[in-house]
Amino acid sequence: MATSSSSDTKFLLTEADMPPAWYNILADLPEPMSPPLHPGTGQPAGPDDLSPLFPMELILQEVSTDRFIDIPKEVQDVYKLWRPTPLYRARRLEQHLGTPAKIFYKYEGTSPAGSHKPNTAVAQAFYNKVAGINRLVTETGAGQWGSALAMSGAFFDMEVKVFMVRVSFEQKPYRRALMQAWGASCIPSPSQETEAGRRILQQEPDSRGSLGIAISEAVEEAVTRSDTNYSLGSVLNHVMLHQTVIGQEAQKQFELADTYPDVIYGCVGGGSNFAGLILPFMKERIDGKDIRIVAVEPTACPTLTKGTLAYDFGDTAQSTPLMKMHTLGHTFMPAGIHAGGLRYHGMAPIVSKLHDLGLIEAQALPQTAIFEGAVQFARTEGIVPAPEAAHAVRAGIDEAVRCRESGEEKTILIGLSGHGNFDMAAYDEYFAGNLVDYEHPQSEIDEALSRLPTVAG
Amino acid sequence: MATSSSSDTKFLLTEADMPPAWYNILADLPEPMSPPLHPGTGQPAGPDDLSPLFPMELILQEVSTDRFIDIPKEVQDVYKLWRPTPLYRARRLEQHLGTPAKIFYKYEGTSPAGSHKPNTAVAQAFYNKVAGINRLVTETGAGQWGSALAMSGAFFDMEVKVFMVRVSFEQKPYRRALMQAWGASCIPSPSQETEAGRRILQQEPDSRGSLGIAISEAVEEAVTRSDTNYSLGSVLNHVMLHQTVIGQEAQKQFELADTYPDVIYGCVGGGSNFAGLILPFMKERIDGKDIRIVAVEPTACPTLTKGTLAYDFGDTAQSTPLMKMHTLGHTFMPAGIHAGGLRYHGMAPIVSKLHDLGLIEAQALPQTAIFEGAVQFARTEGIVPAPEAAHAVRAGIDEAVRCRESGEEKTILIGLSGHGNFDMAAYDEYFAGNLVDYEHPQSEIDEALSRLPTVAG
Repeated sequence: MATSSSSDTKFLLTEADMPPAWYNILADLPEPMSPPLHPGTGQPAGPDDLSPLFPMELILQEVSTDRFIDIPKEVQDVYKLWRPTPLYRARRLEQHLGTPAKIFYKYEGTSPAGSHKPNTAVAQAFYNKVAGINRLVTETGAGQWGSALAMSGAFFDMEVKVFMVRVSFEQKPYRRALMQAWGASCIPSPSQETEAGRRILQQEPDSRGSLGIAISEAVEEAVTRSDTNYSLGSVLNHVMLHQTVIGQEAQKQFELADTYPDVIYGCVGGGSNFAGLILPFMKERIDGKDIRIVAVEPTACPTLTKGTLAYDFGDTAQSTPLMKMHTLGHTFMPAGIHAGGLRYHGMAPIVSKLHDLGLIEAQALPQTAIFEGAVQFARTEGIVPAPEAAHAVRAGIDEAVRCRESGEEKTILIGLSGHGNFDMAAYDEYFAGNLVDYEHPQSEIDEALSRLPTVAG
Repeated sequence: MATSSSSDTKFLLTEADMPPAWYNILADLPEPMSPPLHPGTGQPAGPDDLSPLFPMELILQEVSTDRFIDIPKEVQDVYKLWRPTPLYRARRLEQHLGTPAKIFYKYEGTSPAGSHKPNTAVAQAFYNKVAGINRLVTETGAGQWGSALAMSGAFFDMEVKVFMVRVSFEQKPYRRALMQAWGASCIPSPSQETEAGRRILQQEPDSRGSLGIAISEAVEEAVTRSDTNYSLGSVLNHVMLHQTVIGQEAQKQFELADTYPDVIYGCVGGGSNFAGLILPFMKERIDGKDIRIVAVEPTACPTLTKGTLAYDFGDTAQSTPLMKMHTLGHTFMPAGIHAGGLRYHGMAPIVSKLHDLGLIEAQALPQTAIFEGAVQFARTEGIVPAPEAAHAVRAGIDEAVRCRESGEEKTILIGLSGHGNFDMAAYDEYFAGNLVDYEHPQSEIDEALSRLPTVAG
């Protein structure tokens, strides 16, 4: 059988081509990361501070500076249910735009959960199972992370409970059914089941919820139940690590396509899909390669473009370690946009560090623009993008249009992190003309930033 | 890069391995098919009778006895957006069942519409476009066909209108949004927009609709508008033909897997996914190969297991040519099960012929059993099957369990025609314990069969 050639639409790898290890950017950063701090003492948090939440193997990955960390066979076996994922050349979109640019997209929607999230969910479930843990609790925004962990729990015969941000729970009822199909339970957050949830509901009975609140609830349950660990779908170093299979595959696929990206666009919420795609390329950027890397976020939650780099809590109830990250403040409540997965006040410390070092750029887009781009994409390439992924799609289309005007023959890579099959209610609202472009007034952002914790040193 | 090996989970082909032609079983049938008859005269229907509905190229394919018909480059280019589709070895399901059988599934859910339907939708849109037609009208049950044609219309810049069976329109609201994302319009059937629809609504204002009624509406609109052609997603010979890319790919993939199926299970509604998978294998069966082929249908619409082989109309309003097929009678109204794509009174003439010749078997399954199998599949293999495809899944699981008991090391092939991402409301009802197993009383079937048209000769 022939292998892929540069005239193909999809650049495919076989299972034998799958990366045997995750790539760890901590081995190659020009300067070290700032350590997480204990929320009580303000001192650097050690393994013992994290062990009520995570198994030791993941804690070690969180701080490791080894360049490569082997992917266990059991995790690889599950990856093979949908990996390697395809890299597409968007020939129809290029033609439609009349651009001289070459547009590529790396598509993570082939996983049964429909997004990149299982890349880390499977690994986390596995390491917990090996450590003797049979019950996981987590939070989810749009439901992509919750679905991914639900599926991974099924594969390793574990119980999974998901606190889902209430606004998404209501917008996306079928996500709950999906989690249930994989055997997990899913409840709207804030809930009456935790101290953190009850406190919020007392202050604001109609709370739409937020990822920050849902994290507080999940963390509280993990800390108070010895049979239960917590699992986080983004932000942390080990999550970024697990996602690097995306970028490593893409690099091999660009060899088949006989080109190399000049610019990469990925959407950012907590940062994991973006990091997974760009970190392997970032190594080459650090080594001197000329490549632009752009994080695209919603104007309704402008963490990189309007937030600040500071130590902050990962959650609303101030129960997580303090992390040095771009943040809008842990009390910031993002508007109820449809890209629920991007409604997070903070940004992964690794992504924040890269931004601080000037190695990545950031831009923000309003939601009507991203749906416009998504529909253009669907009508040319077929795939209906998830609203989150549509941020990268729109930014990539804008770049291709600029190339049409300038005549530049750039190679553009878009991170298409998932499909929109569970987001059709959002498309429905878009077609009905009911979508609003939220932009928080600066005073609201300043107010949240004024509540950042004070950290000595 | 290495190619697939027999220890893989997925057996993948490259775009260069795609079949260059569709396979036409009419070249190899042991005896010829009975011709369609004109609904008015009862005489064999000629090309002129079909030309108000279809472009000449499709009419010629309908009667061709050429063994292979080349796939146009424009159609192949679109196929490459998701084809070749993977053949999976269901290693996790095998392990869970403790069976010595090897279970494989050919997965068509990688298309952006989520099923096998685009294989013919793209071809039909193309041939219409080439013939100067810019507007297509069709019907859809569960919405898979309507979505596929909507997407295909977008690729060839055509207007698409879809009459959707009302019970499915209400059960699956996001299917409509999906069709809209691809630029099509979708209305519930029976509607006030056609004579056929108005007649039904007058008799039964709360009609749940059926594929038979929706076909009548679509055909009426195509016949009465000269700028519009009709497109059918199943039943007809040219539709079966276009779907044979599935089975041809699977044959090549079994070479990679170094085995060959002993038994194949596919679900049947109109018969197209089943035919597409099995026809290339049927050629080998006719040539003497020992292979069992089983069509699985719902007990709520038992066309092969309780219907009769006779000339009948394809629709309720008696507007289509008469076809010699297995049928429950064109007035039969199947119960409102969730496998909307299988709610059709007739069966493709080709599939009916193969059944009549004893070359395929048929079995019927109730819907709670198929959801039970689907959940077992989802929790081991990840993919949540569409309720239609779940019929084949459940039958395949039952076979694997029999192998566990008998010790037989059979190779089982399941046709997994689509995913259930748009069917989560059905899973929700299943989990809530609200699903009912419909079985029509024999008297109801006899009553519908008594209204079959009388055909001379």
